[in-house]
Amino acid sequence: MTKPEFYMDLALNNAKAMKGQTDPNPLVGSVIVNESRIVGIGTHLKAGEPHAEIHAIRMAGEMAKGGTIYVTLEPCSHHGRTGPCAEAIVQAGIKKVVIAALDPNPVVSGNGVKILQDAGIEVITGVREEESKQMNEVFNKFIVQKKPFVTLKSGITLDGKVATHKFNSKWITSEEARRDVHHLRNENMAILVGINTAIKDDPALTTRIPNGRNPIRVVLDSTLKIPLDYQLVTDKQAETWIFTSKNCDKVKKKALEDVGVKVFATSSKKSVDPNEVVQILGDKGVSSVLIEGGGNVNASFLENKLIDKVVLYFAPKLIGGQDAPTFLEGTGFEMMKDAIELIDTDFVRVGKDFKFIGYPNYDKS
Amino acid sequence: MTKPEFYMDLALNNAKAMKGQTDPNPLVGSVIVNESRIVGIGTHLKAGEPHAEIHAIRMAGEMAKGGTIYVTLEPCSHHGRTGPCAEAIVQAGIKKVVIAALDPNPVVSGNGVKILQDAGIEVITGVREEESKQMNEVFNKFIVQKKPFVTLKSGITLDGKVATHKFNSKWITSEEARRDVHHLRNENMAILVGINTAIKDDPALTTRIPNGRNPIRVVLDSTLKIPLDYQLVTDKQAETWIFTSKNCDKVKKKALEDVGVKVFATSSKKSVDPNEVVQILGDKGVSSVLIEGGGNVNASFLENKLIDKVVLYFAPKLIGGQDAPTFLEGTGFEMMKDAIELIDTDFVRVGKDFKFIGYPNYDKS
Repeated sequence: MTKPEFYMDLALNNAKAMKGQTDPNPLVGSVIVNESRIVGIGTHLKAGEPHAEIHAIRMAGEMAKGGTIYVTLEPCSHHGRTGPCAEAIVQAGIKKVVIAALDPNPVVSGNGVKILQDAGIEVITGVREEESKQMNEVFNKFIVQKKPFVTLKSGITLDGKVATHKFNSKWITSEEARRDVHHLRNENMAILVGINTAIKDDPALTTRIPNGRNPIRVVLDSTLKIPLDYQLVTDKQAETWIFTSKNCDKVKKKALEDVGVKVFATSSKKSVDPNEVVQILGDKGVSSVLIEGGGNVNASFLENKLIDKVVLYFAPKLIGGQDAPTFLEGTGFEMMKDAIELIDTDFVRVGKDFKFIGYPNYDKS
Repeated sequence: MTKPEFYMDLALNNAKAMKGQTDPNPLVGSVIVNESRIVGIGTHLKAGEPHAEIHAIRMAGEMAKGGTIYVTLEPCSHHGRTGPCAEAIVQAGIKKVVIAALDPNPVVSGNGVKILQDAGIEVITGVREEESKQMNEVFNKFIVQKKPFVTLKSGITLDGKVATHKFNSKWITSEEARRDVHHLRNENMAILVGINTAIKDDPALTTRIPNGRNPIRVVLDSTLKIPLDYQLVTDKQAETWIFTSKNCDKVKKKALEDVGVKVFATSSKKSVDPNEVVQILGDKGVSSVLIEGGGNVNASFLENKLIDKVVLYFAPKLIGGQDAPTFLEGTGFEMMKDAIELIDTDFVRVGKDFKFIGYPNYDKS
């Protein structure tokens, strides 16, 4: 590890520690070094409060002058609530800026670097770029595409099953893995399931960790089958949004709306197009969605290339059964060469289970 | 890590390096320490040659006297080709013996320790016991049960599929993973498949690594469907043993035998009982079997609790499909509580893929 990587890792670590408390802003960390000594650290704590660079410059005081600032995201160039950070860096007399990743927004990307360079400051970019981008993967997609970052999550046996052939699924994964899922729910603005999952077991789909945030509960229900006495309709623990077809039962729709459920009648006559769901969620400001659907809902989102990230919890168990459902059903691809490859993969232990993380690579070359 | 663990790890490492060259003997390594200095190392090189302790004692020479010997397996008490090692240790004047695992054979287990203790030598057991047992897992089972150690291997997508719904399976795993499989074949005395796997693609089931050993190719074929012009019948690369039913086609059986294929007509009238297959293989001296079957063959062995170890290669790919086959089919268990849990699990990267290793725990408590 080089010295710049060391300083940037420290900045990344301080940025990541704020996960969940900076929305709708990204996570950013900063370190100022002068004469081989760290003279200031900063992190963005909360939207509306100073950016990471400002905190670090304040801590450094006079020692910022002549120093090098490491920052995980390109300093901003816009006059927001705290003024452009690029100008603050110039004013502090900093002579070198090391940046992990440029601003993801193509409209402003590079503007901060330009202000710095125009002031005669040396700028280096790309140190720990991937780490910085991954840390803000949700923000980076939403700010550019105005569509939610979609994570597919499933808990499965080693033979790929999500339930036995009798549809028993309690429990596949360990308590530790199930607790981890609640952290995923806490981090996502919405959780999405199909109607079969919503009907099975009458789930609450809430976050069961202390001070956890409940995501908006999104249900795809083309014929409005959801019973009016179900937790998702009655419990008021979080909003419930139902996406249905154009030709849905209007009486049932009104009954749901009367008890506070939002019902979106989409443009398809009989089904619900996942592309339209993602578009509407984005339009409503939902920046992240966790899909905990059954095999067919999961497959429909994957086939439409709407999944940005896959998180799988593998329980070290074997259940067998030709008719036992897997987490990815539908028709499936015909040839192995058409399989969707996941990249930037990682495996970690969670209790007795293994958590897999990967990112679908839809662009075959 | 304690000092004894450090010495035992060195002994284990020297033992493991001989993998494949000590058959039918187990892997054993040994280290002698005197006055905090390593004065001798030994390993069992080849059946008929000296045991690990003898090599270490010879290397230590006079320095064995008063020293401590670390040995991965209980010193033998029997008068074999090289005499009992326990007595050699006594004669060398060693004053302390540290043993990883006792002899797995219940008839002689503890006898070596007794000889040592009767001579006034201090004996410590259980240092790196699990590592030692795992290193000789095949030997340990076969010497006691006279039945082969059975490893189930499969290469699967992250959604558990072994092929697309059109039965295309080239390729699921990476070249690195497929090369790793050839090492598995090299280490096993037999490879076992069902007739469907044998018919699909006309496989050779040989070991494709330099100087690799080809396993005996075992095919379960209850109605002797295997074509006479298939590689398994004609290529003479290795023995082919076919297990069929009592009521098999006698003409086809003779045709196969005439070209050198061994045909075992088992006691079942229509099918082949996996328990009987394992019993016969054991009777014939086959100590290890690698199952590379389809989902039904795999399930039948697992349901009969015949699988000792599971090795899965997960390709980071998604294929989907309700009708795409998984590596474990059959009927499957009805309830999750009946799922077979794998213990002593491990995950490692092999190229782009992940290799999972685990041991079925059939004893529910």
